[in-house]
Amino acid sequence: MKRVAILGSTGSIGQQTLDVAARHPDRFEVVALSAGSRVAGLAEQARRFGVRTVSCAAERDVPQLRAGVASGVRVESGAAGLLAVAAESGAEIVVAATDGMVSFEAVAAALERGIDVALANKELLVAAGELLLAAAASGRARLLPIDSEHSALFQCLVGEPRERVASLVLTASGGPFWRTDAAVMRGASVADALAHPTWRMGTKNTVDSATMMNKGLEVIEAARLFGLPAERIDVLVHPTSIVHGFAVFTDGSVKAQLASPDMRVPIGYALAYPDRLPGEPPADPLAAIGAQAGAQALTLAFERPDFERFVCLRLAYDALRTGGTATAVLSAANEVAVTAFVEERLRFGEIAEVVEAALDGIPAEPLSWESLAEADARARTLARDRVAAKA
Amino acid sequence: MKRVAILGSTGSIGQQTLDVAARHPDRFEVVALSAGSRVAGLAEQARRFGVRTVSCAAERDVPQLRAGVASGVRVESGAAGLLAVAAESGAEIVVAATDGMVSFEAVAAALERGIDVALANKELLVAAGELLLAAAASGRARLLPIDSEHSALFQCLVGEPRERVASLVLTASGGPFWRTDAAVMRGASVADALAHPTWRMGTKNTVDSATMMNKGLEVIEAARLFGLPAERIDVLVHPTSIVHGFAVFTDGSVKAQLASPDMRVPIGYALAYPDRLPGEPPADPLAAIGAQAGAQALTLAFERPDFERFVCLRLAYDALRTGGTATAVLSAANEVAVTAFVEERLRFGEIAEVVEAALDGIPAEPLSWESLAEADARARTLARDRVAAKA
Repeated sequence: MKRVAILGSTGSIGQQTLDVAARHPDRFEVVALSAGSRVAGLAEQARRFGVRTVSCAAERDVPQLRAGVASGVRVESGAAGLLAVAAESGAEIVVAATDGMVSFEAVAAALERGIDVALANKELLVAAGELLLAAAASGRARLLPIDSEHSALFQCLVGEPRERVASLVLTASGGPFWRTDAAVMRGASVADALAHPTWRMGTKNTVDSATMMNKGLEVIEAARLFGLPAERIDVLVHPTSIVHGFAVFTDGSVKAQLASPDMRVPIGYALAYPDRLPGEPPADPLAAIGAQAGAQALTLAFERPDFERFVCLRLAYDALRTGGTATAVLSAANEVAVTAFVEERLRFGEIAEVVEAALDGIPAEPLSWESLAEADARARTLARDRVAAKA
Repeated sequence: MKRVAILGSTGSIGQQTLDVAARHPDRFEVVALSAGSRVAGLAEQARRFGVRTVSCAAERDVPQLRAGVASGVRVESGAAGLLAVAAESGAEIVVAATDGMVSFEAVAAALERGIDVALANKELLVAAGELLLAAAASGRARLLPIDSEHSALFQCLVGEPRERVASLVLTASGGPFWRTDAAVMRGASVADALAHPTWRMGTKNTVDSATMMNKGLEVIEAARLFGLPAERIDVLVHPTSIVHGFAVFTDGSVKAQLASPDMRVPIGYALAYPDRLPGEPPADPLAAIGAQAGAQALTLAFERPDFERFVCLRLAYDALRTGGTATAVLSAANEVAVTAFVEERLRFGEIAEVVEAALDGIPAEPLSWESLAEADARARTLARDRVAAKA
């Protein structure tokens, strides 16, 4: 039995992690959960899984949460609560599925204490990847990716000599605007941006997928996780999202990972690693490799991304090349811009402009806990000002 | 430096193995070579690589071979010569690239003495897979595949828990007759059958590819190498031969291996395993995963094989399910039939009929050294009689 804690259990990844745990009750025991404001949902999850530690975002919600769980359950809130769930709950693996930077300290603390972290949160690795890797090294803990693309690359590299990796390729669906004219894209509505062709994800990730900032953040994540420079991480657009990544080796051999676009596959992989979960995939070989049931053929198509229309993807490569706090600035400014877009205070095409303004306006500093916090704050302030100026 | 011996060094795989060794003189030392009747070519190879043991098929060719190599080189012939090259030359790895069963005893002897064998020869594994695996186990030697499809599957399984493999999928180009009408196929000429769309191989393998017996033999090989039953090994037709195989895991994840159709990739992998060879694959991601240089997109297509037109593929599955000596009968009868076809004593469509007659006419026995030799001999006799009757 592996003891599992989840940061962000009421979100999309959190719920799917609980799905995986519920399907394999002989393998996983869910011991701790945190959520933001969905207190009733959190309490219901805690009761269903017999969880012993729970935490919500606001202290004022603690009485409601306490009333909803069994007596004897530890009930916490805020930063201390995240720390309790991640590092004080007896968990052997923490699934970090919160948005933004809120779980940074809890995740770092878990890693330093030797607790493995399965990371579904892009921003943590993008902004502070080096710091988390250092925490993992000091605690001899594993940092496992849950993003489907990074899980794919991680799977392709299992058992392989790392010094023989020539490059890594992440696939991108291209999002809802892959075939959309630049002028139309610029004024796209929130509903248009949320109509993702293949993946069901949270709002932030879905908008990021429409701008392809999502893929840019993933390029930065891959650089951190696999220790490669920007020029050895590529993106190919693959609209059907069946192949999630390729590892290109120095000997000319390439490995790819495929799976239906279901986050429970990479979640299950991270939870079970280095084992895999049992199960029965389709016996039909075409269906097993991703074809619709009954199909007579499967075609997998790959094409180059368009850095002209998808400015955010170019900005992410720029920030990765700049290094230091630049990726934190990119991520923080993007977070502010996406929120403004979803709240209809910013046009779709202006998201990239806000991010670019932040990267131009805030000089990169070498990464440290302090420089990171300052860069994050400055990026948010600058981005909010820009959003206000455009409104 | 890894010391390498090659059985069948003047054939297609043998020559490409020498190519790989010549490109990596800091890693591989070629110590022993055997060939059949191409004595002048063998002597030239021996001089070029400073080889210390050589062997040709016929004793009468020994003087010519001896005259062509440096003094002090051990010169042998026949079965004793194959044994000298494989097991007495100081080699750490033997590349077995002869056709048919001629290298059986030499390969088994090498494995029993703890010498790794990289196997390019299908028939050995098809006819006597269990015996070779037992020899490898007793000598604690590795049996590494050189076939591109088995190398692909082997690569996909590196670092993976074997009990989590749900199924394996081998890809097939479909050969020159994939889109050809059954009636036309039946009377196809030798030239038609040798016009393989993607791979450059020896004559026997190319004809086997046209009948898809090649793929059937590979299904049997995969069953032996990876310890899986017939129903968990599938074939998909993939005309461009970029993806060579898929491993489908129980958790729904799938891994694939891709490479340009160049046998030096799997040869280099087998020689370097568990490392990989250094090199610089294309920096362009589409080209790295198999697109033509300069292409703007790559499409990979997969479809089901046609067991009606490609009778040999069905017969191979039948023989695998029957077990025992049936796969040896399949392979031996096919060898006779293909030779007869190439010598224009048999029509293309009659190859399968000869093989089927042998499988029907020779009852399967449990596999042993004795039953194998007897089944092989009976299959060849029966097949020759059938060929004679049809001529």
